[in-house]
Amino acid sequence: MTAHVPTARLTGERLLDDMTPAERERAARVEQVLPALRAAAAQADADKAFPVGHVELLREAGLLGLVVPEEYGGLGGTLRDLAAATFAMGTACPSTALAFFFHNTSASRGLLPLEAIDSGLFAADEEPVVKAFADKILQRMAAGVWMANFASESVKSSSANIAIATTATPAEGGWVLNGEKSFGCATGVADTYLVTARIEGTTTADGLALFLVPRSAPGVSARPAWDGLGMRGSANDGCRLTDVFVPADEALTVPGAFVKMLQCSRGSFVGNQLAITAVYVGCAQNLYDDTLARLTGKTFADTGRPIAESPMHQVIIGDMTERLETAHLWLRRQLLLETCEPPIATKSEVYAQWRIAKGSICQAAFDVAVGAFKASGTSAATMNGIVGRGLRDLAMGLVMTFPPERGRLEAASVITANRANELFANQAVTR
Amino acid sequence: MTAHVPTARLTGERLLDDMTPAERERAARVEQVLPALRAAAAQADADKAFPVGHVELLREAGLLGLVVPEEYGGLGGTLRDLAAATFAMGTACPSTALAFFFHNTSASRGLLPLEAIDSGLFAADEEPVVKAFADKILQRMAAGVWMANFASESVKSSSANIAIATTATPAEGGWVLNGEKSFGCATGVADTYLVTARIEGTTTADGLALFLVPRSAPGVSARPAWDGLGMRGSANDGCRLTDVFVPADEALTVPGAFVKMLQCSRGSFVGNQLAITAVYVGCAQNLYDDTLARLTGKTFADTGRPIAESPMHQVIIGDMTERLETAHLWLRRQLLLETCEPPIATKSEVYAQWRIAKGSICQAAFDVAVGAFKASGTSAATMNGIVGRGLRDLAMGLVMTFPPERGRLEAASVITANRANELFANQAVTR
Amino acid sequence: MTAHVPTARLTGERLLDDMTPAERERAARVEQVLPALRAAAAQADADKAFPVGHVELLREAGLLGLVVPEEYGGLGGTLRDLAAATFAMGTACPSTALAFFFHNTSASRGLLPLEAIDSGLFAADEEPVVKAFADKILQRMAAGVWMANFASESVKSSSANIAIATTATPAEGGWVLNGEKSFGCATGVADTYLVTARIEGTTTADGLALFLVPRSAPGVSARPAWDGLGMRGSANDGCRLTDVFVPADEALTVPGAFVKMLQCSRGSFVGNQLAITAVYVGCAQNLYDDTLARLTGKTFADTGRPIAESPMHQVIIGDMTERLETAHLWLRRQLLLETCEPPIATKSEVYAQWRIAKGSICQAAFDVAVGAFKASGTSAATMNGIVGRGLRDLAMGLVMTFPPERGRLEAASVITANRANELFANQAVTR
Amino acid sequence: MTAHVPTARLTGERLLDDMTPAERERAARVEQVLPALRAAAAQADADKAFPVGHVELLREAGLLGLVVPEEYGGLGGTLRDLAAATFAMGTACPSTALAFFFHNTSASRGLLPLEAIDSGLFAADEEPVVKAFADKILQRMAAGVWMANFASESVKSSSANIAIATTATPAEGGWVLNGEKSFGCATGVADTYLVTARIEGTTTADGLALFLVPRSAPGVSARPAWDGLGMRGSANDGCRLTDVFVPADEALTVPGAFVKMLQCSRGSFVGNQLAITAVYVGCAQNLYDDTLARLTGKTFADTGRPIAESPMHQVIIGDMTERLETAHLWLRRQLLLETCEPPIATKSEVYAQWRIAKGSICQAAFDVAVGAFKASGTSAATMNGIVGRGLRDLAMGLVMTFPPERGRLEAASVITANRANELFANQAVTR
Repeated sequence: MTAHVPTARLTGERLLDDMTPAERERAARVEQVLPALRAAAAQADADKAFPVGHVELLREAGLLGLVVPEEYGGLGGTLRDLAAATFAMGTACPSTALAFFFHNTSASRGLLPLEAIDSGLFAADEEPVVKAFADKILQRMAAGVWMANFASESVKSSSANIAIATTATPAEGGWVLNGEKSFGCATGVADTYLVTARIEGTTTADGLALFLVPRSAPGVSARPAWDGLGMRGSANDGCRLTDVFVPADEALTVPGAFVKMLQCSRGSFVGNQLAITAVYVGCAQNLYDDTLARLTGKTFADTGRPIAESPMHQVIIGDMTERLETAHLWLRRQLLLETCEPPIATKSEVYAQWRIAKGSICQAAFDVAVGAFKASGTSAATMNGIVGRGLRDLAMGLVMTFPPERGRLEAASVITANRANELFANQAVTR
Repeated sequence: MTAHVPTARLTGERLLDDMTPAERERAARVEQVLPALRAAAAQADADKAFPVGHVELLREAGLLGLVVPEEYGGLGGTLRDLAAATFAMGTACPSTALAFFFHNTSASRGLLPLEAIDSGLFAADEEPVVKAFADKILQRMAAGVWMANFASESVKSSSANIAIATTATPAEGGWVLNGEKSFGCATGVADTYLVTARIEGTTTADGLALFLVPRSAPGVSARPAWDGLGMRGSANDGCRLTDVFVPADEALTVPGAFVKMLQCSRGSFVGNQLAITAVYVGCAQNLYDDTLARLTGKTFADTGRPIAESPMHQVIIGDMTERLETAHLWLRRQLLLETCEPPIATKSEVYAQWRIAKGSICQAAFDVAVGAFKASGTSAATMNGIVGRGLRDLAMGLVMTFPPERGRLEAASVITANRANELFANQAVTR
Repeated sequence: MTAHVPTARLTGERLLDDMTPAERERAARVEQVLPALRAAAAQADADKAFPVGHVELLREAGLLGLVVPEEYGGLGGTLRDLAAATFAMGTACPSTALAFFFHNTSASRGLLPLEAIDSGLFAADEEPVVKAFADKILQRMAAGVWMANFASESVKSSSANIAIATTATPAEGGWVLNGEKSFGCATGVADTYLVTARIEGTTTADGLALFLVPRSAPGVSARPAWDGLGMRGSANDGCRLTDVFVPADEALTVPGAFVKMLQCSRGSFVGNQLAITAVYVGCAQNLYDDTLARLTGKTFADTGRPIAESPMHQVIIGDMTERLETAHLWLRRQLLLETCEPPIATKSEVYAQWRIAKGSICQAAFDVAVGAFKASGTSAATMNGIVGRGLRDLAMGLVMTFPPERGRLEAASVITANRANELFANQAVTR
Repeated sequence: MTAHVPTARLTGERLLDDMTPAERERAARVEQVLPALRAAAAQADADKAFPVGHVELLREAGLLGLVVPEEYGGLGGTLRDLAAATFAMGTACPSTALAFFFHNTSASRGLLPLEAIDSGLFAADEEPVVKAFADKILQRMAAGVWMANFASESVKSSSANIAIATTATPAEGGWVLNGEKSFGCATGVADTYLVTARIEGTTTADGLALFLVPRSAPGVSARPAWDGLGMRGSANDGCRLTDVFVPADEALTVPGAFVKMLQCSRGSFVGNQLAITAVYVGCAQNLYDDTLARLTGKTFADTGRPIAESPMHQVIIGDMTERLETAHLWLRRQLLLETCEPPIATKSEVYAQWRIAKGSICQAAFDVAVGAFKASGTSAATMNGIVGRGLRDLAMGLVMTFPPERGRLEAASVITANRANELFANQAVTR
């Protein structure tokens, strides 16, 4: 399906104001699905259900292969396209945008191994195995397979963001998986679950492996429905895997493959991670636009002037504007850092920036929601209206992955360590 | 019913740490209803319904007459008792606490007129009429009548906090009311609706009058159900009044009575208003306690140490503690300003302090919720759990009456005007 | 000298609005020195010098014995008097207030040992020695000796707020001191330096001891002049001690005496510490009052309206008012917690509250200064005017002792540990 | 003089990471003067004096013509160069950077009239007069004339940022100026003062005119020395003009010329204004770098670990990093909005963004200073050290032009009005 590319500004261009023609063409595909997303958003939230028609809608629009290279049949988009897409979808239905984001993170499980091969990180005999798995992921996504990415688990580790306890045990012709995956979008919706598990008996990240599990494979079940405060239409119940058999060629179990993938990620560890924050910025943008329209359209009974002109509203509008733009700024910068060629920052700098950016973006987006809430008053403080739903959806950004407070501390730790290293080098020189 | 007064610290004493024995006795009555309130809170929120049994529960405990003087058959409590009660109830079920608060504001419609009489604000021939109405309110409340207080309407005025459009037209033997009351708790639950309306043909506050309307009076109906983001168990749909007849002796229509009442209010205009903020502080207190208990009880899988000890959690706990205590401090101070004898601040100072205090208290309470939300992570970010519900309930405090930004601007206006007046006086002296 | 007690509100009563008649009498003594303090403040700042006449001024007013019990010849004030005094002086000359505060902390070195004796913490044979030293401090202060308190040193410890490296070595008839004391007010001004040092050879806090060193004792010298950003008139250069001999009866070297003193301190470790924050609140109060007076007195050229009425000024005035009152609230509460009888909080709770309070008070006071700075514009952004000086003086509150960020983390640590202990107790019970 | 262009990253590239080769060449000229600026900064602050040698230093480096087109003999730089230059100089000596910024704003008085001519805003007979004046400014700047720009006056208007009261009266062969210019850098240092005045008898902005006044012209005198809190080396006393004669050909008095210039300014009204914020960001960058170096280099006595690793320091470093980067982000974005071709935002959008950006940048830079101050402790809280000086210099950014609170309110006003206009257009369509 080809999209008509309108000459008017596309929604995604509010974030990405320097799109190439090819990017605009892809963004036009996103634009055309927005009305359907917007129309279904309130009901999806109320029903706590991903609108089933959206899978076909996005597949038809070719968007399931948005970031898959053209040689694999995809649209050839990059992280820039993905961020613009999740931002635009976020203005219409943040839940769908979130699920779509997680689908796209699966592409990194194809792309990063290929980069690792190019960088010579794999042994010669490992390369074909790794490549075959990577190709499989990319080809399927381009062909319209929705591939949910299940990594998170509920166990907490003080030193790692995600601790993996799901276990893969060798079995005749493949592997048997057992475990439970918490948060992961498109549970019961995606065609395939991309599951990260640890090979039984291993103790380090070298033992982490990837498995492709059909949604309806025996032993796969949904966890108890998760009654989220926001992002309720993203079908993020998570799943249980009980003695689920996966054939050997549907798995990537080369030792160290996971770690080598991460080494090739330019920014955040899963690759593409910044696009999740674009979901929240899109949601905040929509809430901001809607609030301004309401406040300038509604008037005081006594003066006939727009409510937006009251001193309190002017203060809040000024603050909301500053907060929304701050979210845009951090997001655009991170996108530049992770996509520009040649790179303008070291991997360590990009990482530290991301840890802060994630928190600053999501906090600023949430602050926009709080501003909209205050400015709109009691009558708009409903569960299902755009303001109440926006507040709930944007609250989720405060906890997904990590809160701002954690991001800043982690950045501080990296920066301090880097400085200490520099210091050491300096001392060595002065001897 | 008499309450056993425990020797252990009562919940309300966390706010009010200098209770008199009489206050403790009344607070013990509150303490004994908390378990029932706490047990019903989640369901009330989910059902968007005030638990019907709570009316009888509170009546049995004598609490419907909490702030009614003993000579009227009440418990003789003051604003201090009310704040301690709404705080304590807020730790168990903020919705019930809110509805209970609004019932008690009705008492000011009895007490303030009596004060106005004592202050000689009414003419001799008006006094008996005013006193009869005041007595009626107080006697009924003491006798166990739940009296909802309906003032707010949805029309917005740039100069007033509440604009009254509901109209009372003279009729044979009484008045006929027409209008719509937005926000007001215990709709469909309270025995009597205390309605503020304007006498037809009047244009100033002198034309405002009070009417006692039985819940089931002909012409009284509920507004469409209001699907609030929080405080969902407070039954605050509001009501419609269509040609509702009220007998003359169930109304206070003496011209200027409303204004004269306000002149006797020491702080906020309806009297007792600060106790609404105690609801939010109670809710925040409970969320804080619950969060600390969870975070110190849950441990990291790798180290076995409490999650609460992680650097991020320490930062958030420090911030939450500061925010919660800030809420307590502003609330306690406002309570002192409005209750101490002799007064230690002018009415104008008390008013300005209240405008700021309301916002600072509710903002701080909401900040506690955001901290609890961040600290508790994705798994606790549910719609109905204590964290998600707490965030929703506490968000309501940001908009009820007015947001912090408005309160500070109003205080600034008062302060600036006062200073300008002082200046003028100084100049006059130097001539 | 007896002070005339005016009927008008005393400056200190803006902080302490429930003074007893005796407290008012003492506060009147403070009130009468304020004009002289105010008159000398700008020059003291410019000259970086404590106004020499102030020692005599305060001595004449009897204020050097403000918190010394009447049986020792003092005025019998408590921490309440001290806080009211440093607040009031802070409105006039924060540097003098700061130096006066440190003089008064010396009293705790007399009072706390006496409490420790009463609590039976000392052995029978130690008691007379300890009492003799305590009496000496109190009697001298009451008699008009300015007693500077030197504890801080420049070495940093990760686990302690203050690390003591100054050493006392036994010598014939007494002790010989060597070391350097950083921050400490009234250097070169005070009659006596009260020095904390460690007995040579000891490694724990039990080895800390106190010494009374005359300002002009051989071996005592000033450190290089410290060119502080603010509080420049407090003579806080600190001193060097080079083989300074102290007779045995001018020292308190009973092992463990220091630790036992601390055990008797109700709140902050040195006793009286909260009164230092009152200095900053006083300074902020004065800056606030001055700024409001200027902004309401100055008018726009085009409209003739006070500058204070501009939307921006209204926003800043609202914020400043909130910040100033927040400082007052935390300070009043801490004062209550540390002085009320019977205590309403455990020592651990008082400690945690203090760690947060110190930061919240000083941060809020600094925020008032930043607000005054913004509101007053470029023309008032001078080095020596009241706004620039206020900003500099109040910045010092952010670092003295510890910044807000540290206080909150320390409180979080205490709170978390307490909860963990509670948890343990609970578990034990359920076995 | 030609600068050697180093291959290492230039200071200005920390702000502008996409310099063209020509920009790098110009930035290298800036780089070479930084050591001299840095060396003189502390003394300039202490002496409250612009280092006289800096005029010659910058002239020799060709930098006085940095933003003058090459056809006029300048270096041909743009606003990008100017921002990179003031940022870089800000890391070394903010006062010099500030004075250099104001010199460069004079170029807009040459460039904007030329643009206005190109846009056909002037009548045919006015064009030669306007062009001659514009050429004169640009040629002189390129030739090494330091041209101070005096616009601000001390009178306050509620509706305008700057109100001009200085008057130009016609005289034989020219004009006579009378008035007083407050804030303006390089007083007594610049070769020429570019003075904005109103033609006597006019009442609107059309009557504003420009005059070139030699520093030593009869009737020119300095105002009383202004003892600024920060930026003390920028010689910003301002000047008095008493019957100063200016020949006709040294003035631009074409009616409406000033207003037509403003119409051609893309962003802020004087053109180039954003570069002033780069001064503050440079200062903050230096303070940040210095603080990190100190905190990672200094260790705790007990553990030997860097002080930077303490929990409090980690919190503050995380916050400082976020604040510094936020300043960079707003500044880079504003630069892009004001320089990119084709424009990506309307003039109204650029204006609104600038009003917010100015405040957000300067507030964030100041926050970095407060963080550095807290993290560095009492020992670094000195008047003249890098921390104390940085805090003082960066405080000035809060008031220069306007504070953040005012910028946000002004942006809100523009945004609200734009929305109301949009609304109006919509309504018209639906008729």
